[in-house]
Amino acid sequence: MSNKTIDKYESEVRGYCRTFTKTWDTSEGAWLTDTEGEKYLDFFAGAGVLNYGHNHPALRKPLLEYVERGGITHSLDMYSAPKERFLETFNQVILEPRKMNYKVQFPGPTGTNATEAAMKLARKVTGRTNMAFFTNAFHGMTVGSLAVTGNEGKRHSAAQPLSNATPMPFDGYMGEGVDTLDYFEHVLEDRGSGVEMPAGVIVETVQAEGGVNVASREWMERLGRICKKHGILLIIDDIQVGCGRTGTFFSFEEWDLDPDMVCLSKSLSAYGLPFAVILLKPEHDIWGPGEHNGTFRGHNLAFITATAALKEFWQDDALTREVRRKGEIVRERFQAIADRHPALKARVRGRGFIWGLASEHKGLADMFSEEAFKHGLVIEGAGIDDNVVKFLAPLVIEEADLVKGLDILDKVAETVSKKLAEQNAA
Amino acid sequence: MSNKTIDKYESEVRGYCRTFTKTWDTSEGAWLTDTEGEKYLDFFAGAGVLNYGHNHPALRKPLLEYVERGGITHSLDMYSAPKERFLETFNQVILEPRKMNYKVQFPGPTGTNATEAAMKLARKVTGRTNMAFFTNAFHGMTVGSLAVTGNEGKRHSAAQPLSNATPMPFDGYMGEGVDTLDYFEHVLEDRGSGVEMPAGVIVETVQAEGGVNVASREWMERLGRICKKHGILLIIDDIQVGCGRTGTFFSFEEWDLDPDMVCLSKSLSAYGLPFAVILLKPEHDIWGPGEHNGTFRGHNLAFITATAALKEFWQDDALTREVRRKGEIVRERFQAIADRHPALKARVRGRGFIWGLASEHKGLADMFSEEAFKHGLVIEGAGIDDNVVKFLAPLVIEEADLVKGLDILDKVAETVSKKLAEQNAA
Amino acid sequence: MSNKTIDKYESEVRGYCRTFTKTWDTSEGAWLTDTEGEKYLDFFAGAGVLNYGHNHPALRKPLLEYVERGGITHSLDMYSAPKERFLETFNQVILEPRKMNYKVQFPGPTGTNATEAAMKLARKVTGRTNMAFFTNAFHGMTVGSLAVTGNEGKRHSAAQPLSNATPMPFDGYMGEGVDTLDYFEHVLEDRGSGVEMPAGVIVETVQAEGGVNVASREWMERLGRICKKHGILLIIDDIQVGCGRTGTFFSFEEWDLDPDMVCLSKSLSAYGLPFAVILLKPEHDIWGPGEHNGTFRGHNLAFITATAALKEFWQDDALTREVRRKGEIVRERFQAIADRHPALKARVRGRGFIWGLASEHKGLADMFSEEAFKHGLVIEGAGIDDNVVKFLAPLVIEEADLVKGLDILDKVAETVSKKLAEQNAA
Amino acid sequence: MSNKTIDKYESEVRGYCRTFTKTWDTSEGAWLTDTEGEKYLDFFAGAGVLNYGHNHPALRKPLLEYVERGGITHSLDMYSAPKERFLETFNQVILEPRKMNYKVQFPGPTGTNATEAAMKLARKVTGRTNMAFFTNAFHGMTVGSLAVTGNEGKRHSAAQPLSNATPMPFDGYMGEGVDTLDYFEHVLEDRGSGVEMPAGVIVETVQAEGGVNVASREWMERLGRICKKHGILLIIDDIQVGCGRTGTFFSFEEWDLDPDMVCLSKSLSAYGLPFAVILLKPEHDIWGPGEHNGTFRGHNLAFITATAALKEFWQDDALTREVRRKGEIVRERFQAIADRHPALKARVRGRGFIWGLASEHKGLADMFSEEAFKHGLVIEGAGIDDNVVKFLAPLVIEEADLVKGLDILDKVAETVSKKLAEQNAA
Repeated sequence: MSNKTIDKYESEVRGYCRTFTKTWDTSEGAWLTDTEGEKYLDFFAGAGVLNYGHNHPALRKPLLEYVERGGITHSLDMYSAPKERFLETFNQVILEPRKMNYKVQFPGPTGTNATEAAMKLARKVTGRTNMAFFTNAFHGMTVGSLAVTGNEGKRHSAAQPLSNATPMPFDGYMGEGVDTLDYFEHVLEDRGSGVEMPAGVIVETVQAEGGVNVASREWMERLGRICKKHGILLIIDDIQVGCGRTGTFFSFEEWDLDPDMVCLSKSLSAYGLPFAVILLKPEHDIWGPGEHNGTFRGHNLAFITATAALKEFWQDDALTREVRRKGEIVRERFQAIADRHPALKARVRGRGFIWGLASEHKGLADMFSEEAFKHGLVIEGAGIDDNVVKFLAPLVIEEADLVKGLDILDKVAETVSKKLAEQNAA
Repeated sequence: MSNKTIDKYESEVRGYCRTFTKTWDTSEGAWLTDTEGEKYLDFFAGAGVLNYGHNHPALRKPLLEYVERGGITHSLDMYSAPKERFLETFNQVILEPRKMNYKVQFPGPTGTNATEAAMKLARKVTGRTNMAFFTNAFHGMTVGSLAVTGNEGKRHSAAQPLSNATPMPFDGYMGEGVDTLDYFEHVLEDRGSGVEMPAGVIVETVQAEGGVNVASREWMERLGRICKKHGILLIIDDIQVGCGRTGTFFSFEEWDLDPDMVCLSKSLSAYGLPFAVILLKPEHDIWGPGEHNGTFRGHNLAFITATAALKEFWQDDALTREVRRKGEIVRERFQAIADRHPALKARVRGRGFIWGLASEHKGLADMFSEEAFKHGLVIEGAGIDDNVVKFLAPLVIEEADLVKGLDILDKVAETVSKKLAEQNAA
Repeated sequence: MSNKTIDKYESEVRGYCRTFTKTWDTSEGAWLTDTEGEKYLDFFAGAGVLNYGHNHPALRKPLLEYVERGGITHSLDMYSAPKERFLETFNQVILEPRKMNYKVQFPGPTGTNATEAAMKLARKVTGRTNMAFFTNAFHGMTVGSLAVTGNEGKRHSAAQPLSNATPMPFDGYMGEGVDTLDYFEHVLEDRGSGVEMPAGVIVETVQAEGGVNVASREWMERLGRICKKHGILLIIDDIQVGCGRTGTFFSFEEWDLDPDMVCLSKSLSAYGLPFAVILLKPEHDIWGPGEHNGTFRGHNLAFITATAALKEFWQDDALTREVRRKGEIVRERFQAIADRHPALKARVRGRGFIWGLASEHKGLADMFSEEAFKHGLVIEGAGIDDNVVKFLAPLVIEEADLVKGLDILDKVAETVSKKLAEQNAA
Repeated sequence: MSNKTIDKYESEVRGYCRTFTKTWDTSEGAWLTDTEGEKYLDFFAGAGVLNYGHNHPALRKPLLEYVERGGITHSLDMYSAPKERFLETFNQVILEPRKMNYKVQFPGPTGTNATEAAMKLARKVTGRTNMAFFTNAFHGMTVGSLAVTGNEGKRHSAAQPLSNATPMPFDGYMGEGVDTLDYFEHVLEDRGSGVEMPAGVIVETVQAEGGVNVASREWMERLGRICKKHGILLIIDDIQVGCGRTGTFFSFEEWDLDPDMVCLSKSLSAYGLPFAVILLKPEHDIWGPGEHNGTFRGHNLAFITATAALKEFWQDDALTREVRRKGEIVRERFQAIADRHPALKARVRGRGFIWGLASEHKGLADMFSEEAFKHGLVIEGAGIDDNVVKFLAPLVIEEADLVKGLDILDKVAETVSKKLAEQNAA
């Protein structure tokens, strides 16, 4: 099947299809099949949407049953049976075992709808207008979310000045030995700093788009204490690294951290269906009815698959253990690549099942993606300079497939390393 | 089935479930069935999402087939077979017959993602930062869209000042005999007006949430001319009244109007699945790759059902004629209610298959909704004062069902009218 | 004396010296003398600073005495004898006889310092952030004041979007027969209008820079009622047309109007010395000590001359009667010019001793200024299109001098009218 | 003479008169005389306005002569003889000997008028909207200047969010051993930092209001290099510490620094008369005529005294040497105080003739001011916590008077130290 209509009519804003040039037809687990029947291994997972792989049978079955019997598909924020069951399950499987007490808000079914709503609520609760965020953060493409996003190109897409947000240095931003929260704490405590006391801090525990920058437990816990001290609401954007990406369901659940709000989306529906929630401390739930709304809040197919995924994957800690075991394989193989190819000038960073090979060479990730795709592997880059190869395979990938993909990356690293050497020689 | 988990755990922001207190289980066409097996007639249609009714069999079939065969569900903005087919079909069935030449952008799959992206592009194209919008407009709940929304309660949910947007009076805002565009044109032509020349104008041809305020053809065409003259991009937000709601696919397609961008969402997927597009003039397509992105842009299930709907409903003008015929019935019956019950102080306004019974009594629509629900009818209100009963049934409703619902509204009007009389007497 | 150093070193931003090309040496009353000893008649009065003429002897004497005896010149907001006397005199001569009860704030000694401080206070008092202003308003060149200024060129000098301000149509903006306050009142009463309820309205009773647009008493009084009803603070910017320019000390003092704040500057020092005050209702005086400050608040030389002027000119109504009598002469002569030269397409508007000959020809005022200067008369233009010849002579001008200047204007009108005819013929 | 009218009618915003409770009558050099004939020694100098002392005879004489002969007082930005002479003198005496090539802009005659204009121009020149400033900066009270001011109380006086400005850590902000420009440079070079590339940086070489924070030469020179590299305009706000306060005319003139703009005000008129200029690199002078204007730009009395001061004080380096000599006395005496009274927990910082005794005790400066005033000495505090005693005597103070004041401060330190001990004991 050709792409000529897409190439002709879809806006120039289209991006990934420029690197991954095949037309996808079917998909299952960690495998994509194009319209020619060629199979590609997926180390990208829909940018974190497909933690449970493509079209998992345990989710497909209830989805098909629900559609077949005419279950209501769209119900806004009216009561529906699937919503009731989702909330029951989410409480039983996720919140209660973790002793977490949150109410759930259903914003529009995308990440940026969740982050926008969370920030609106933080401002409403505190009566403050400023929001603190971190260098290289990514929180979405609508104007409110862009204001707390680091990437200059994304920010400039707004084509207007962005306001009511102050960037602060993320963990490790000033190099080793500098605790960047010293600066944050100092400006908060100094009433002459010119930094408006923020309503909230929005933070990713691992900045995925920003280049697989991993916040340490100590840093995050200190951030939590600083927020508490100043009445700043802590919003964890767990959209990309929640739902098991770091091993546990929430990326922060093993830490001494008590966020005021948590944003989830991407893998929450577990089947690639648009869906998002905000978890919010009951004391912050001061919304009036309909004060923040949206047309696709009651997306019942997503309730169905999300519920099935919670039951399938999160009743015990098997997935967590599996992710950690396989994640260690990735880390070791990435480290081996970095060690073997000093020309890449790369360091390995990550947690759980998100790993970055962060090079000093701008654009290195693009070279990796293009080369890998020739060998049947889909893998993307990250970082402001496209310099971080980002591993983001489905959590449920078979070990054999994982190894197959890592073997391809070995070859890719070899090739890219040579190219760099040639460039230097030239 | 109870709603106790929802009542306990969903945020106070939930709204419609407070009026429509049943838990929906299945749905088909214009009918909703609750978990007790009770059926309710739907004159609300998911706030405009369900123009083709609930779970239409012509859409369900290809959806089921696609899911069953493992078609790719989520593909970001990579190539996929369903996307290629959707674009082909959209061109053949919709754009070409109407001699419309647009490129298509897939933003995040909700209305506000579309309006935000459109406004970003308008600013980028023109290099201007201001946006003009209209009194009582509704364009979404994220910060960029709220800035062009009239409703004070919605605006204040942002809990920060909204900027780079100037409200202008909508058609009819100053009463009959005042062409409100005189003011708009005057401030644009007077370089001392203090109104920054806008990048774009965003406008609904019928303000649905705003109270079923209908712009006249003359007014809209003049607006188009004013925009052309000043290099202002005209953005039609056809999210709620596109996809056939006014009879034709686009609400403006029979007019001498040439919008620079058109936003569609709600009924575009035709099955209640989250989906949105922006149509944009090729000359404005200056986006860089990935400059505006989003996780759920490649929602293939929505491509499947949207394509099926285009083929099912828009290959000829049968639906258009049907909508107009049945719309006339609604208009007449609404007018009869207004005439019969002067106590309602109501006027009828609307187009195609969106009609409002606009009362001078604040909150009258709430009284109607509550009373109608007792009789098995779901109908919502609109307007800043909840004073407009809004008819928004599926376009495909059977005439018998339509009449059944209108009969219920007769009774409701009777009851409400009496209550008003009692209140006045008291 | 040459101007070569000025021409070489002063920024290109210099303006008036491009039209009035002589180098001024001395000045007295309505007369300017250049360094060659040539005398020019002043119908400009420092843009409203010199209502009492240049270097009035009744002011010069106490000024000289104060400087000679070493009176303190600069005292910030510490106590000083001249400040105490100024406040005493201002109360006795101005406020008490008019039964006005205001406290006095001394901001930095320029108009924009006063308007900025007034708007800050309005926001602080009401807790609202928006400010309403009027088309073609001019309130100053700092960012806060520019946001409420109409002129596009001035606004764009900020080179950033201006926010928290909404323009509304001034009296007469939509032509005769349209009460523009209908629109203002409508948007305030409609919570769906998208106009944020303003903290305050800032308004000039006569828009001098904006083109000598005169608000009617009825319009201003209605504006006052609207403000009261909605808890909006009414700020009268009497900087250019206060201090007697309209005949009375305040431009609004004969009306049923009770502004919350009044800004004065320009002619307040009466001698061309920088000085500004804000009068504010005692109940709004919620400033903390030093919350708004400024280096040149305690400009004692200005206290001295301002006090002397109050005593010299405002102990009785002689000046008011004189201004009205002479103003009527100007009006008649201007009307005669307009009648005699239909090619000017001019209308006469004004009040007291500010009069405009408002032409439909863009740039007509520049032609008048240049031509008049050749005949020894300094007169400036106004309006966004430099189309309004603005009469703004000192209030104290001798009648003979007034007539002399008006005679020059007759000749100028003749010449300009001919030029227009030639242009049309060409 | 009583202050009862001031106390009754002046706004609560009045500040200094609450500490310095006498009513000033005359003043000369470093001495203030109240209406009872009591004399007070002035270590405050009008917050930096009176570097040449009060009413210096060398300035008073030409001022009196000019007023007596009827020299034009107010001339907007028309040519005037005093302006021509001021520019000639400023070039000959100040710019040319320092090989500085700048054009001069006359904004409104206060500091904030100058900083607002400078920032507008920086934005216009670069096409960028953001402005970088430093923690604890003070640049004025109008909205544009407040946005680049650190003090929370001042900022909140705007009662609206301030935008288009990003605070950065000033020299020394993170303690010794941390070069705070590392952070500034990093965020500029990282396109993912979320810090918008600024149009300009506005900086005080010594933050006077902010607590006598002294930037080192190395830090300032590096700042200059960073600005050059990124096309950021460097704006030195030399309003408080220019005009000789640090010894040299400009605070930075001995460094390898090439600012794009320099703002001067305060002591520029040399006689307490409102006056301000912006020096701007000729290549940045892209203003259109009148694009930034203001009523009191042509304040000829200030031209007269400013010119006289340049001739009196800056034709040779006598004043510079004198300031350094006397400044060293102050530094030693302040250090002795700090050493002698460890309870004060104070450190000494400063340059030239601005010195701070910076204590860890909040409010310590207020205790000093009050106690000193009892002994006939006027001295003020600074810093967000009123914890820095700020020495700011006239540069021309007699050595005997200087010692007299320092002796008083010895006593005050003794008393305050005891009070602190008592407080601790209690």
